[in-house]
Amino acid sequence: MASSSSLSPPAVPMELHAGNRDRLVAALRSHLSASARPLRGLVLLQGGDEQTRYCTDHLELFRQESYFAYLFGVREPGFYGAVDVASGQSILFAPRLPSDYAVWMGEIKPLSYFRDTYKVDMVFYVDEIAQVLQDRFSGDGKPLLFLLHGKNTDSGNYSKPASFEGMEKFDTDSSLLHPILTECRVIKSDLELALIQYANDVSSEAHIEAMRQARPGMKEYQLESIFLHHSYIAVLHYGHAAAPNDRTLDDGDMALMDMGAEYHFYASDITCSYPINGKFSSNQIIIYNAVLKAHNAVISHMRPGVNWMDMHKLAEQTILESLQKEQILHGDVKDMMAQRLGAVFMPHGLGHLLGIDTHDPGGYPEGLERPKEPGLSSLRTTRELKEGMVITVEPGCYFIDALLTQARNDPISSRFFNWQEVEKYKTFGGVRIESDVYMAWSRGVKSQELDRRSLFLSPSAIGPIRAFSNDTSIS
Amino acid sequence: MASSSSLSPPAVPMELHAGNRDRLVAALRSHLSASARPLRGLVLLQGGDEQTRYCTDHLELFRQESYFAYLFGVREPGFYGAVDVASGQSILFAPRLPSDYAVWMGEIKPLSYFRDTYKVDMVFYVDEIAQVLQDRFSGDGKPLLFLLHGKNTDSGNYSKPASFEGMEKFDTDSSLLHPILTECRVIKSDLELALIQYANDVSSEAHIEAMRQARPGMKEYQLESIFLHHSYIAVLHYGHAAAPNDRTLDDGDMALMDMGAEYHFYASDITCSYPINGKFSSNQIIIYNAVLKAHNAVISHMRPGVNWMDMHKLAEQTILESLQKEQILHGDVKDMMAQRLGAVFMPHGLGHLLGIDTHDPGGYPEGLERPKEPGLSSLRTTRELKEGMVITVEPGCYFIDALLTQARNDPISSRFFNWQEVEKYKTFGGVRIESDVYMAWSRGVKSQELDRRSLFLSPSAIGPIRAFSNDTSIS
Ligand SMILES: [Mn+2]
Ligand SMILES: [Mn+2]
Repeated sequence: MASSSSLSPPAVPMELHAGNRDRLVAALRSHLSASARPLRGLVLLQGGDEQTRYCTDHLELFRQESYFAYLFGVREPGFYGAVDVASGQSILFAPRLPSDYAVWMGEIKPLSYFRDTYKVDMVFYVDEIAQVLQDRFSGDGKPLLFLLHGKNTDSGNYSKPASFEGMEKFDTDSSLLHPILTECRVIKSDLELALIQYANDVSSEAHIEAMRQARPGMKEYQLESIFLHHSYIAVLHYGHAAAPNDRTLDDGDMALMDMGAEYHFYASDITCSYPINGKFSSNQIIIYNAVLKAHNAVISHMRPGVNWMDMHKLAEQTILESLQKEQILHGDVKDMMAQRLGAVFMPHGLGHLLGIDTHDPGGYPEGLERPKEPGLSSLRTTRELKEGMVITVEPGCYFIDALLTQARNDPISSRFFNWQEVEKYKTFGGVRIESDVYMAWSRGVKSQELDRRSLFLSPSAIGPIRAFSNDTSIS
Repeated sequence: MASSSSLSPPAVPMELHAGNRDRLVAALRSHLSASARPLRGLVLLQGGDEQTRYCTDHLELFRQESYFAYLFGVREPGFYGAVDVASGQSILFAPRLPSDYAVWMGEIKPLSYFRDTYKVDMVFYVDEIAQVLQDRFSGDGKPLLFLLHGKNTDSGNYSKPASFEGMEKFDTDSSLLHPILTECRVIKSDLELALIQYANDVSSEAHIEAMRQARPGMKEYQLESIFLHHSYIAVLHYGHAAAPNDRTLDDGDMALMDMGAEYHFYASDITCSYPINGKFSSNQIIIYNAVLKAHNAVISHMRPGVNWMDMHKLAEQTILESLQKEQILHGDVKDMMAQRLGAVFMPHGLGHLLGIDTHDPGGYPEGLERPKEPGLSSLRTTRELKEGMVITVEPGCYFIDALLTQARNDPISSRFFNWQEVEKYKTFGGVRIESDVYMAWSRGVKSQELDRRSLFLSPSAIGPIRAFSNDTSIS
C-alpha cells in the first residue's frame, strides 16, 4: 500500500490462499496415506484477536496471525478457519459483532460478504463452530481436528492451537499439522511471489528516496520516517524495538538502514548501507566493497541443492580475504576460517527465509539441528536451497567493540589481527547489504531473464549507489 | 519527537517523575493516617515487557506501561520500581541482560547509568528484588507491598499487579494503591503540562501540514502519513484499529482527522474536520458551525466545580438548536433533550481526561456510576472539573445510518426530524472538532492570558480554517 509511490499495487487474488489450502490438503493427504491413516479430518486454525495496550482501551494496530493469513487471507480479527481434508472445502467462522459496532464502523457485514471477499466455500459464526463441524463432518466416532502446535525456531515460542467452546466433542491431533503447514510456507507460488515482488519494489523505491534526502545531522528515525512516508504500511527492522533509533548520523558516518514494506501480509526485507554525506571515505569503500563482493559471490553460487551454511561460509571467506588484502588481518584465510574469525565481523547469519513473516518459519525442520559454532549458531536455517524458496542474502561486516575485545583477549585469534589498522575502524559501525532472492532456477522462464534465481536487489547493490562505488557490478 | 517540525522539543526533566512519586507518597500517607494505619510499606510496580507478534520473533515497538511511566519515566522494558512510603525513597530494578546483548545494542549499561538517567535513589537487578526489599525495609513481621490492582473504566480491563520470585516473603495490599495513584494522575503538574503542551504544538503543526497537502482523491491513510512524517513518534486515533483507513476522500467530502502525537509518554488528542477540496459546501458549513459553536460554548463555560455531564448536555443542546434553526429538526429543543436526540447526532461522550494515556484513567472514581441513558452512557467521565485536569473538548455531529434508522422507527423521536432535509446529509459523514483544555483557572498566571483555562486549540477551531469558516472566534 504505497502512498507516495509511483508503483501501482497488484490485485490481491484470493486464489492465492485457495492455492495455499490446496497444497496443504495435498501434503496432509500424502502424509496420512504414507502412514495408512484415513484421509479425513479438519484443519482448524484460530486467527488473531485485537490487543489493547496493557489495561487501557488503546487498541494496537491489528496484524493477522501469519499461518491464518497464509491459509485464508483474512484481514479482520476474531475469525476461525477450517479446511476439510477429505473434500478440500474451506469454512470461515466470523465473529458475531455487537449491533453498536455499526455506529462507528458502518453496516455490519453479512456472512455472504466474507464468503465473497475471501472466496471460501462456507461462512458461519464463531459461536457455531462445534455445531457446524459436528453436523457436517462426523462419520463414525468424534470428528478429528488437526490443530496448530509447534515451535518457531527463531523465537522459541509455540503457536497457539485453536480453542473454542465445545472442543471436548472432537478428537484432536496437534502434532501433524505444524511441520506440514510450515513446509508448505517454505515454497512460494507464483501468486505469492507477485506480492513479494511488489513489496520489494516499494521498499527499493522508498530506500532510494531516503538515500536522496539523507543529509549529515539527520537522525536515523528521520530516514525511517521518509521510508514510511513512501510505503505507508511498512514493517521496519531495527536492531531492537525497545531502543528508539535516535542516533544522529554525522558527517563521515555510514547509514545502515534495514527496512522493508509489507503488502497483503507478504514482506520484503532490504538493507542499504551508504555514507550519510554521499561520499565514501577510503575506509568505507574498503568495507563496502568487501561486503558487496560477498553478497555477489553468494548470489552467483546459489542453486538448488546448495547448502546455506556453505553460502554463509563463502560470505565469511570472501570478507576475510578482503580484510586480509587490506592488511586489517594477516595470515592464512583457511586458518582464520578454522578459528571462526568470520563471526567476529559478521556475528549474524547470512540470511533467512522470507514470506508472510520477515523471518519466515521452516528454517529448521524436524531432524535438522542448529549448529553450535560462533556465527553459524546464528544461522536461521542450514537447509539446502530448493526451487521456490525466497531467502535473504545479507552479508555484513561490522567493527563491534564487544567482539573485537573478545578476539583480542584470545591468544590464537588475536595474532590474525593488525590491531593498529583495526583501531582506525573503531567508530566505523558496519556495512550490510541485503537483497531478497527467489530460487526460480528451472521454472521455465526465458533463460536470459531468469536463468537461476530472481533477484530483488538492495539499492545498495545496484542503482544510485553505483555512483559512489568502485565496483557494483553483479558478476 | 518531531522530525520535520520547526519546534524544538523541551527537555524532559526527571524531576517530573520525582514529583509524581512525591504526590503519591503524600496521598498514601494521608490515607494511611486517616485509617490509623502505620505510615510504611513499599509501592511496587512492574514495568512493561517486550511483546513478540504471536509465535514469531517479530518484536512489537515497545511502549512502557502507563502507571510505571508516570512514576519512573523509564523507557526500557523489563524493569520494576519501588517507592518507600516511610522515606519517599525510590528504587529501580533493572533486568540483567545477557552478554550477547552488547553485540548489537552496544555496551550494557551499568546500574549507575539508570540511577543517573532516571534520578532514583537506588538501582539493583530484578533478580535482587526480594533480597533488597527484605534487607532494607523489614521492621516487625513481613514487609508490606502496595500492589497495583484495579479496573480501567474505559476498557474494563484490570491492571496487572507486580509479581516476582520470592513474593511469598511479603504481605501485600492490592486495593489501596490503584485508586490513589489513579487520582494522582488526574491532576497534572506544570512539568507534565509542558510535555502535553509540546505534544499539542507538534500535533497542531502536523494537522496543518496535512490540511495543506490535502487534495480530492487522497486516501485517509495518506493524510495520516503526512501527519506521521511531521511528528514521527505519534499515536494515531482511528475509528477502529482493525479497519485500515483506506477510504478515498473525493471532491465534496469532509475529512475528519483524529490524530495526536506523544512526547515522553504524554499525549495530545486533536481532531480537525475540513472539506478535502478546501471549500465548504452550504451543508458542510452548517454542520461545521454547529459543532464549532458547541465547542466554543463548552469552553467558555468550563470552570472548576462544573459537572462534565452538564457540559456534554450543553454541547448537545447547542447542536440541536443549530439543527433546528436550519430546519433539519423541528419542535422544542427541550423536548428533544428529554428524548435524548443529542445522542443520535453525537453518540460519543464530549471528551475525556488526557495524559500518559489518550483516554487517561480516573474518569469514574469509586462511587461515581456511569449513566445509562443514550449518549450519556458513552461519557468517559461525569466528574466535576477540577483545577489541574487536562480534558478534551470534542463535540461532533454525524449522520449515521444505524442511528437515524433507529430514530425514524421510533414514533416519538421521528416527529422531530425533517426527513426530507436529513436525506440531503445521507453521505455527509460527520464533523468533529477536538481541542485539549487545561483547567488552569487560579494558577496565578496573568489574568488576561490564562484567566480560566489554557487551550490547546484544534486547528479546526482557529487558524487556517478561519478562511473557510463564517465564525471561528472563541467568544
Ligand atoms: Mn533480514
Ligand atoms: Mn479524544
